Amino acid sequence: MQFGYFDDAASEYVVTTPDTPLPWINYLGSQDFFSLLSHRGGGYSFYRDAKLRRLTRFRYQSIPADNDGRYLFVHDGGDVWNPTFAPAQAALEEYECRHGLGYSRITGARGGVRVGLTFFVPLDAACEVQLVTVTNTGEAPKDLTLFSYVEWCLWDALDDALNLQRNLSLAEAEVDGSTIYHLTEYRERRNHYAFYSVNAPIDGFDTDRDAFVGGPWTALAEAAVPRAGRPGNSVASGWYPIASHCVRLALAPGETRELVFVLGYAENPDDAKWENGSGVAPEGERHEVGRSAPHEMGRHAPPEVRRAAPHEMGRLVRKDGARALLARFATADQARAELARLAASWAGLLGHFHLESADDKLNRSVNVWNQYQCLVTFNLSRSASYFETGIGRGMGFRDSNQDLLGVVAMVPDRARARLLDLAATQFTDGSAYHQYQPLTKRGNHDLGSGFNDDPLWLIWGVSAYLKETGDLAILDEPVPFDNDAALAAPLLDHLVASWYHVVGNLGPHGLPLIGRADWNDCLNLNAFTASPGESFQTTAGRGDGRIAESVFIAGLFTATCPDLADLLDRRGETGLAAQVRDSVAAMHEAIHDHGWDGAWFRRAYDAFGAPVGSATNDEGQIYVEPQGMCVIGGAGPDDGRARAALDAVAARLAGEHGIALLAPPYTRYHVELGEISSYPPGYKENGGVFCHNNPWIIMAEAIAGDPGRAFDYYRRITPAYREAIGQVHMTEPYAYAQMIAGPAAPRSGQAKNSWLTGTAAWAWHAATCWLLGVRPSLDGLVVAPRLPAGFGDYTVTRRFRGATYRITVTGAGTPATGRLSVDGVAVDGDVVPVAAPGATVDVLWQAP
Amino acid sequence: MQFGYFDDAASEYVVTTPDTPLPWINYLGSQDFFSLLSHRGGGYSFYRDAKLRRLTRFRYQSIPADNDGRYLFVHDGGDVWNPTFAPAQAALEEYECRHGLGYSRITGARGGVRVGLTFFVPLDAACEVQLVTVTNTGEAPKDLTLFSYVEWCLWDALDDALNLQRNLSLAEAEVDGSTIYHLTEYRERRNHYAFYSVNAPIDGFDTDRDAFVGGPWTALAEAAVPRAGRPGNSVASGWYPIASHCVRLALAPGETRELVFVLGYAENPDDAKWENGSGVAPEGERHEVGRSAPHEMGRHAPPEVRRAAPHEMGRLVRKDGARALLARFATADQARAELARLAASWAGLLGHFHLESADDKLNRSVNVWNQYQCLVTFNLSRSASYFETGIGRGMGFRDSNQDLLGVVAMVPDRARARLLDLAATQFTDGSAYHQYQPLTKRGNHDLGSGFNDDPLWLIWGVSAYLKETGDLAILDEPVPFDNDAALAAPLLDHLVASWYHVVGNLGPHGLPLIGRADWNDCLNLNAFTASPGESFQTTAGRGDGRIAESVFIAGLFTATCPDLADLLDRRGETGLAAQVRDSVAAMHEAIHDHGWDGAWFRRAYDAFGAPVGSATNDEGQIYVEPQGMCVIGGAGPDDGRARAALDAVAARLAGEHGIALLAPPYTRYHVELGEISSYPPGYKENGGVFCHNNPWIIMAEAIAGDPGRAFDYYRRITPAYREAIGQVHMTEPYAYAQMIAGPAAPRSGQAKNSWLTGTAAWAWHAATCWLLGVRPSLDGLVVAPRLPAGFGDYTVTRRFRGATYRITVTGAGTPATGRLSVDGVAVDGDVVPVAAPGATVDVLWQAP
Repeated sequence: MQFGYFDDAASEYVVTTPDTPLPWINYLGSQDFFSLLSHRGGGYSFYRDAKLRRLTRFRYQSIPADNDGRYLFVHDGGDVWNPTFAPAQAALEEYECRHGLGYSRITGARGGVRVGLTFFVPLDAACEVQLVTVTNTGEAPKDLTLFSYVEWCLWDALDDALNLQRNLSLAEAEVDGSTIYHLTEYRERRNHYAFYSVNAPIDGFDTDRDAFVGGPWTALAEAAVPRAGRPGNSVASGWYPIASHCVRLALAPGETRELVFVLGYAENPDDAKWENGSGVAPEGERHEVGRSAPHEMGRHAPPEVRRAAPHEMGRLVRKDGARALLARFATADQARAELARLAASWAGLLGHFHLESADDKLNRSVNVWNQYQCLVTFNLSRSASYFETGIGRGMGFRDSNQDLLGVVAMVPDRARARLLDLAATQFTDGSAYHQYQPLTKRGNHDLGSGFNDDPLWLIWGVSAYLKETGDLAILDEPVPFDNDAALAAPLLDHLVASWYHVVGNLGPHGLPLIGRADWNDCLNLNAFTASPGESFQTTAGRGDGRIAESVFIAGLFTATCPDLADLLDRRGETGLAAQVRDSVAAMHEAIHDHGWDGAWFRRAYDAFGAPVGSATNDEGQIYVEPQGMCVIGGAGPDDGRARAALDAVAARLAGEHGIALLAPPYTRYHVELGEISSYPPGYKENGGVFCHNNPWIIMAEAIAGDPGRAFDYYRRITPAYREAIGQVHMTEPYAYAQMIAGPAAPRSGQAKNSWLTGTAAWAWHAATCWLLGVRPSLDGLVVAPRLPAGFGDYTVTRRFRGATYRITVTGAGTPATGRLSVDGVAVDGDVVPVAAPGATVDVLWQAP
Repeated sequence: MQFGYFDDAASEYVVTTPDTPLPWINYLGSQDFFSLLSHRGGGYSFYRDAKLRRLTRFRYQSIPADNDGRYLFVHDGGDVWNPTFAPAQAALEEYECRHGLGYSRITGARGGVRVGLTFFVPLDAACEVQLVTVTNTGEAPKDLTLFSYVEWCLWDALDDALNLQRNLSLAEAEVDGSTIYHLTEYRERRNHYAFYSVNAPIDGFDTDRDAFVGGPWTALAEAAVPRAGRPGNSVASGWYPIASHCVRLALAPGETRELVFVLGYAENPDDAKWENGSGVAPEGERHEVGRSAPHEMGRHAPPEVRRAAPHEMGRLVRKDGARALLARFATADQARAELARLAASWAGLLGHFHLESADDKLNRSVNVWNQYQCLVTFNLSRSASYFETGIGRGMGFRDSNQDLLGVVAMVPDRARARLLDLAATQFTDGSAYHQYQPLTKRGNHDLGSGFNDDPLWLIWGVSAYLKETGDLAILDEPVPFDNDAALAAPLLDHLVASWYHVVGNLGPHGLPLIGRADWNDCLNLNAFTASPGESFQTTAGRGDGRIAESVFIAGLFTATCPDLADLLDRRGETGLAAQVRDSVAAMHEAIHDHGWDGAWFRRAYDAFGAPVGSATNDEGQIYVEPQGMCVIGGAGPDDGRARAALDAVAARLAGEHGIALLAPPYTRYHVELGEISSYPPGYKENGGVFCHNNPWIIMAEAIAGDPGRAFDYYRRITPAYREAIGQVHMTEPYAYAQMIAGPAAPRSGQAKNSWLTGTAAWAWHAATCWLLGVRPSLDGLVVAPRLPAGFGDYTVTRRFRGATYRITVTGAGTPATGRLSVDGVAVDGDVVPVAAPGATVDVLWQAP
């Protein structure tokens, strides 16, 4: 069952009913100001940090779901409705939500009135713009009263939820003309404020939630002010501050009116927080207004007067920042121009890769939605989604290095900066803080280090950046260790430290020690935690951690360290390069001798030296990760192990909804394995389809020669292909989910944790670099399609190091290799040499 | 405007409308299992620790408020309603909620059906019992379908709210007969579970919230299963687990049926978590049920079959604990007997003090509600209320010592144990951890020490315990310092350390250094924090903290250290006693020389040595705390300063809603003062009526000779007297609030943070020991009434050290002193000597 469709021409997903299985959201903003926006207008906004600068309040797990957002109530002769359907849920005669690139447009109509709401976060502006179009589609004049609504969060989203005994006494707001300012705590240490404005005179306002809603016992759906059709002109003083404008519109038949609402954020210099000396509301009036009981409405003076302004010894909050920003959106034409600028920016970003093939689902995935998700994930790491509450997660070291794979071609400068930030949280021994704080860019001490795959992802990230950009100079950039400038060393030294951290920490089988965990955060072989509530990741368990080993890290080592050797060679460090290559060979040997279980690669050795992911285990006999990564790293192409391992994946792990992480799932808690065995069977790491690793198998199948299986796996997890089973899949059909419940789960096929997942980057990487076969390398652009027979011809337009490559592939899938020609000239091998910036290169790949 | 009335005969407050200004709650339980219960059935339950063992989910700040609880839906021929009004809010023909001592009884009627719900937490049982009485009050037979409903919390209330990407895959439940088990995480490290049961066969169940409610978009008010009148028989698998029973009742006209629901908690030994070998639901069936889409209802097999049991290798969760507990409540008669036992327990506890006077409001306050609140506060410290989210607050050192004043006569053994726990968190230098964790009884390192009033409250607490009990042996109890048994020393040594910590930390004026803060947590003279989000209490500011001094601590020192000297004398430590008395005299001198501002006592000196709470300040010229405490400590009776200070309080701080903390409120942030200046004027410490300190002024006025003013002040903050202005006051008229918005606040008179406040203990202490004048001392029971002329005669029955004192006071208020006789024999002074345990003593106090 579908709940909408892709409008490929507009690069939009069109949700056609409010009644989707879950909220289906979009992300607005990509720099400082972010909004999460559902197809019902739900969600929240924040500035830079979803925890510390939360602008609007959102309640996760609420009943009904997703009932906090930016809402416009329409009061039409006593009938009250929302064009977003929520929260009033009055039936709509028309409804659609178009989620586009950095904007969403929701349209609702009822009783001869159509309202369109276009939401976007402009470039270079700390605000969300809401362009509202109201049309009288009927035959008679309409007198409408509109009420906007947002609820403010008191900045720190965690404290906002917990510290009520303080917070319920804090709220302050000011109404100045048509702008409502949220000023809580501005009087004290904050120098920032939020505001909500409309480019029209208002007929009233509310800044107190209870006054707007009608007291504590009323649902937002039944809010009193919209029902009454009269503003409360209420002034927040503690409790729950909101911002609501009242705008009355008289519309002739067929007439359309436009309004521009702006929800924004501004900061002042600490020493210039206040306006000097004018405009303070008289004390008496301030109190008269403020004293109004929350339930009393509509009895106050008209709102033109400045209201209840918090002030410091007679000085009002300085508002230049807000005013300057609002001036950019004073008219609908201005707003449209900014929207067009935003659209152009997205078109530019996504234009670096364009596929035309017979498979619409693949086209829209790689051209639009997967790229888009990659950038969202790169921006937000794992901080704020409808499954990540925006509280407590920093930027992950390994997450960010992998996320970078999805965006390095789009935003190479930002990728470069991110790499340097990440490397600066590395320790001199090559280990790394597992997370760092985006605001401070410093490592997170609470979590610390000890995730022994982390260092290798830095090599992978830098390598991907270099392959895309050729910017070898980055290797000479001085980068601190442990955020200490005194310890700075060239980035290349960091990569060597990463390598050394692995070879310096091998276990009894010559395989890398796993530490707290490797890529699979839930495989905790040294934790041995038995107390509920303890962190599986940070608990110090028994022993010295010198026994448990990871076959996955071994595979990762073989997959990435050859690139390091190449870089060392290019920098003239041939001796070290040889050492690295020797260590890779030794690792291959260790995998061969101790990583193979007989029919697939083992996953690990536990703290007792016993195998994990082995036929000798009762549960968890086979894991997906080493099958993918060892084959990518080059294990087993000659002795048949690669094919055997991938056949075991097909036989034991692959299901209709993707490849499960392990089988059979654990039915009891294994203290020696940790969190992985804490989940009910079939969910998350315990045998769920943990989508992040599925592309590794796709890549491995592409490498090992079964592109049919590779493409089949790709389609099982890629949301565009799952659109038709939306009722089962539940999350958005345009964004990958972290997890799809596996075969053993009661709700197999049900996706969770959509949007912020490393799946996005890997799926894009697997699809473009391996299936479609257009893959950057240090020497040029590799063209090596790996698609099944019958896929058909396709073209890819790829921007690469300033040139444009127009690649035509004909007859892909018939054999594994083809004939390559560049600008009509045949070339040997599969590498298209680097062209001059600005050049356009025609590339033809033909089946022989 | 009132929203109910006191039923004094039943010791109940009767809420007569669901539409109170805020949720009005009661506390059930006093030992291990606690429930917060609002007059609409809202609230939540926890076992011991409101953060770590939260049984049911509650959303603070929700719209509508208080919409999570234990609800019974009545489906009556298509009409759906709740006897608690919430959540469906269908109009009721009858409604009342009777909050009693440890129980609440909510009755609702509609359409010829009356449902009474009696909620209580029995003695010695980890459960909430819900005794349900359903009566057909009409003329025709009724076929009713009842649906119970609670939503489970995943144990750790903070993690439950934040870690959705994990938690939404965890939920597991089992239905076994009429008992629904919540078993999330039991499979792994937990050994505890919750359950919800009814003593009747059920006609179905639901354990998945979306199935019960009808999907994500439906409000609980519109829940689908009750509307349909058919259970969903849904099985939770991740997402949001609930427990709902379906019970069909056929009632003849006039017929009444009773049901007993039990919401409970049980633990198993770690090595006996599982039943052996039987009863596992077949795998196939388990999956068939679990696979049901959340929106599909009513198509499953009958519920007698054991359902979706999480198991470990074929073994089911062991349930002896639940079954044993349920056997105690198998019938309504059993439940009633337990309720009667609970009532007897409360009668015994509260019976230690009984006033009969002409003032009903005073009678009910001191006899019932204030005592009750004292015990609730003692049990819960500041952990869980409708303003305290139950997350993150430990037991406060100073809070708990003061809370003890309110309960020492009721539960002297528990007071004794608490004192020893508290003293064990003291350091050898006399300072103390500011908080300790109730589960571990260890000091909270995150918060640490440095609150320089803390040590003195231990003296006050021990002294109050000794005056009540005469148990001088406690002074010899060995008590660890810093929770280290190796550092144990007699409790008396701890008191001396407390004293020494003050005299060893005097500032430039010979006044005590304030440290991080004194009683007023928000007066942070050494923090100098300028970054939002920093803790005012723990931030390390500039300087060494050796300048800022507290006049309040000086007053507290003079108020409490003479008691220490008396104790030292009684232990033969006369030399040390003399040193203590000398130090008190020196402190009086310091207060005299540097604590007086000219017309009132100063509050402090800041880190620059400048006075705080002085006419020389622009804002915050006078603070309430030193006026009360210095007079209590004996300052200024001879030189007129006591009277002047209290007159200044009357002139500058007292308002119709109580005595403000300071005046005029700060209109800007003072970095040198800290949090106190962070609140909007008139709220909280910034000039709100912070009720906790009002009793100090009441005591001071009683001491200084104006009992009329004392009693007037008492009435301004005591909720029973504020019942008539319920719409202004907003919080419960039977529980003190921490704060009432002060004169400068826009919403002056509005109370917040009801229930868990030190106000309870101090108000009770001031009313009983000072106004009514029945006050324990080391030597006996002081009788010294301080009530205004015209108050009239009264009697107090007081249990004291095992004897019962029947005290009659005639002509109180006319003069300050009277004639005292004991069993008909006149005695000098105001002390009634200690009688033999079991004796009954008749005491007469007569105006001369």
